[in-house]
Amino acid sequence: MMKAFVTVKLKNGVLDPQGKAIAHTLNDIGFPEVLAANQGKVIELDLKEGTPESKIKEMCDKLLANPVIESYQIEVKSA
Amino acid sequence: MMKAFVTVKLKNGVLDPQGKAIAHTLNDIGFPEVLAANQGKVIELDLKEGTPESKIKEMCDKLLANPVIESYQIEVKSA
Repeated sequence: MMKAFVTVKLKNGVLDPQGKAIAHTLNDIGFPEVLAANQGKVIELDLKEGTPESKIKEMCDKLLANPVIESYQIEVKSA
Repeated sequence: MMKAFVTVKLKNGVLDPQGKAIAHTLNDIGFPEVLAANQGKVIELDLKEGTPESKIKEMCDKLLANPVIESYQIEVKSA
């Protein structure tokens, strides 16, 4: 088995209300050192050994990320 | 400015319906090599230079993660 970690983030310039809410709330509860926050998601995939990265890229384009507003990074680890 | 990346995951043993849905759907749309999937979130924080990691840990415990069902990892990068 191998593992792949897909990190999906909003592209620069896309409004991130959830990130803004996190930054605001952290400021409010006593963390003035927070200047900004952005929230993304990370998907951990357990894959059959030997799955090529091109297949994972295809999964991202078809399901895991919305290419219009999101960018993604793939990190593969053999387990 | 410095950046911190907080990755929040469900603890082992906690049901992850969203991860299950991702794995199922990937299987259905033609990716039989996917054995399982887990979804977590990643929060990118822009912080004032010199913020100690203990402060970031405090943010996680107070707002970013639910310590009952979630675990988190902190990665700090100076920009």
